[in-house]
Amino acid sequence: MNKTLISNTTVITMNDAADILEAADVLVEDNHIAAVGPTGTLNERDASVVDGRDRAVLPGLVNAHTHAAMTLLRGYADDLPLTEWLETKIWPREAFLREGDVYAGTMLAAAEMIRGGTTCYADMYFSSAEMAAAATDAGLRASVSGVLLGILPSIDEDLRREIAFVESWNDPDGRVTGAFGPHSLYTCGAEVLRGVAEEAKRLGALVHLHLLETAHERDDIVALQERTPLHALREAGLLETPVLAAHCVYLAERDVDVLAGQPFAAAHCPGSNLKLASGIAPVPDFLKKGLTAALGTDGAASNNNLDMLEEARLAALIHKANRSDATAVTAYQALFMATRAGATALNQAGTIGQLTPGYKADLLLINLTAPHMTPQHNVVANIVYSAGASDVTDTMVDGRWLMRDREVLSFNESETITKGAATAADLVIRT
Amino acid sequence: MNKTLISNTTVITMNDAADILEAADVLVEDNHIAAVGPTGTLNERDASVVDGRDRAVLPGLVNAHTHAAMTLLRGYADDLPLTEWLETKIWPREAFLREGDVYAGTMLAAAEMIRGGTTCYADMYFSSAEMAAAATDAGLRASVSGVLLGILPSIDEDLRREIAFVESWNDPDGRVTGAFGPHSLYTCGAEVLRGVAEEAKRLGALVHLHLLETAHERDDIVALQERTPLHALREAGLLETPVLAAHCVYLAERDVDVLAGQPFAAAHCPGSNLKLASGIAPVPDFLKKGLTAALGTDGAASNNNLDMLEEARLAALIHKANRSDATAVTAYQALFMATRAGATALNQAGTIGQLTPGYKADLLLINLTAPHMTPQHNVVANIVYSAGASDVTDTMVDGRWLMRDREVLSFNESETITKGAATAADLVIRT
Repeated sequence: MNKTLISNTTVITMNDAADILEAADVLVEDNHIAAVGPTGTLNERDASVVDGRDRAVLPGLVNAHTHAAMTLLRGYADDLPLTEWLETKIWPREAFLREGDVYAGTMLAAAEMIRGGTTCYADMYFSSAEMAAAATDAGLRASVSGVLLGILPSIDEDLRREIAFVESWNDPDGRVTGAFGPHSLYTCGAEVLRGVAEEAKRLGALVHLHLLETAHERDDIVALQERTPLHALREAGLLETPVLAAHCVYLAERDVDVLAGQPFAAAHCPGSNLKLASGIAPVPDFLKKGLTAALGTDGAASNNNLDMLEEARLAALIHKANRSDATAVTAYQALFMATRAGATALNQAGTIGQLTPGYKADLLLINLTAPHMTPQHNVVANIVYSAGASDVTDTMVDGRWLMRDREVLSFNESETITKGAATAADLVIRT
Repeated sequence: MNKTLISNTTVITMNDAADILEAADVLVEDNHIAAVGPTGTLNERDASVVDGRDRAVLPGLVNAHTHAAMTLLRGYADDLPLTEWLETKIWPREAFLREGDVYAGTMLAAAEMIRGGTTCYADMYFSSAEMAAAATDAGLRASVSGVLLGILPSIDEDLRREIAFVESWNDPDGRVTGAFGPHSLYTCGAEVLRGVAEEAKRLGALVHLHLLETAHERDDIVALQERTPLHALREAGLLETPVLAAHCVYLAERDVDVLAGQPFAAAHCPGSNLKLASGIAPVPDFLKKGLTAALGTDGAASNNNLDMLEEARLAALIHKANRSDATAVTAYQALFMATRAGATALNQAGTIGQLTPGYKADLLLINLTAPHMTPQHNVVANIVYSAGASDVTDTMVDGRWLMRDREVLSFNESETITKGAATAADLVIRT
């Protein structure tokens, strides 16, 4: 048995009691948390010991909505509204994606995510096989979904391809799991959505889609489909099966009430929603009504980084001003969104998201000694309001260190950066 | 003569032509920029050469509004509205400040600022002598103002103290300059403000105050003083002399028109304004109408870090969503606010804020090779939307390296952190 003891540290458990333990140890056995307790009280025989002094340990961050390979288009098009950005910049370039590009872009994203303490992510993009291969090679936990646009005449073919993908990545104990990724209610017809819902139920797979990112989208659904977004979800059979809905900026208050009682989660993407001028999601309502609110970076082309601590900070900041209420989203709530709520949103509530015995050993260590983390009146406030990706020193997934002391261990990072840069440079000049 | 050549780098000049030069060199002689040009074309005899490959060089960041020593209260009180935060948490603790505390807190701030590429800052707090001593010892450029609350019966004494301070730090070529810091229109009476304006004109000194941080403040001025904030400024004589006004969240559009023609600058503090739920300043109007809009972090108790790149990112992000306009503040405009507009706001427009021959050598180098900075489709977008303080590798002020390769050189950083932590821990338990 492989044992690691992280000793003499501050443990932010994110458990039901919201325990934050000082001078505590975390014992990892193989791929799971075996014990958490006061320093010196755990059975540490045969364990390799990691000194956790001046560090905090917390559950790995869960990026609940991203398009990892879009790192290739980071900084390619900025300061443009969503529709213009998609139609004149992003989609035309994506049309030139070739075999291997998505793998290269996803590995580049993996390096950045590992460096920022992200241990698990929900990825939606083209070429699900390359996405799954990259997550596997990087050592990260991921829910991977190919995009289903469901454009005729290929609806059946697209759906069959994705069913085959999800079936082949459907081990509930696996690190990488297939999910369905119908793009949105405005791009997928009712037939596709019904097909997805049926197959998702049959396979116990997650459905990951975009929902109500813009007011335009809401108005279009109502005008063209003559029904509300909630009706569209219900008719498709997407209320009784786990759904991860990115954005939810224009979710009506009455719909929040209904969805809070369903296996439905919102992936709040504040950075992207600000940058594309989409708006500000009613996250304080989600929290009040008990709708699962996770956090995502969205793709690097609309963020432009994959720093989940920054996303937590944005979530804690923007709703305060938007609601004229400095308590709208607290630092702890934002950290909960970035960890436990993410686990719930990815349908892994009992598996990851807290440092509790029996949970998978997905965690990060963060340095508490830098000037910007001093003094330490409140460790959670320091992490949410002051820290960033670069303060993460160590990242572990499934009991395996992917980064130690800021060195990425699970793959050749320097080659990944070189390959990502070259792929990106080529992608934007292809004709 | 002391010469440094930063070679083979990307130079973001922030000059009038907005030049961004690839494969360029920057020659520093003593405390100023001697030349900027294509790699290999400058006279580099006797220069110590710094390899700038995979780096960008840009003008040092100017933090146009902070209370540096409030690092001592970082994380002490969060998720509270401004009035409650000030009255129940911050002011009671500040009452226990002792000699040496402000120096310790300011040095801690200096370490953080240098690490994030801030080379110049406008500081307003208690104990101006300690603030000036810390800025001097840290090697930073600073405009230092003691807070004038102007509470009877000490108005005259307070003002005399600050006049003496400004007179003793009034060398226009000096790195550290005294300024007047009347707290705000709602805390300072007309008599204090008139006295400050007169003395500021006589000494050629900057006036640094808080202005219209909250709607409450605006309403109070109108109700209690029976005049608009603009009238109060005009009557005090604060329109014809350089004024640096922090926040300006509730500046009326018609007042923006008037102030744009005066030596008046707003220090936009997006992080603090969000965190204290103060609101969102009309920065797109400032930019459109030509009112100088600089950027500040405010104190670390309401931010909670002093990362000016994060502040630039917030400035580029929040106005997009607030105005439903993805072009509201562009990445370049945000970087301009963090550099050149800051120089103008601190009344140093011809001295710092751009990499142009003759300007003071205040600059930073930023690493472009990290995963989150790859690829490099757009260097300014990468810096504003993806980078953070930790990407800054080197910081120079007045031709002197304060940090090289992430090592702070101008003082003992480790002792500063220890001293800051101990001072902060003591401050919050004093009775």
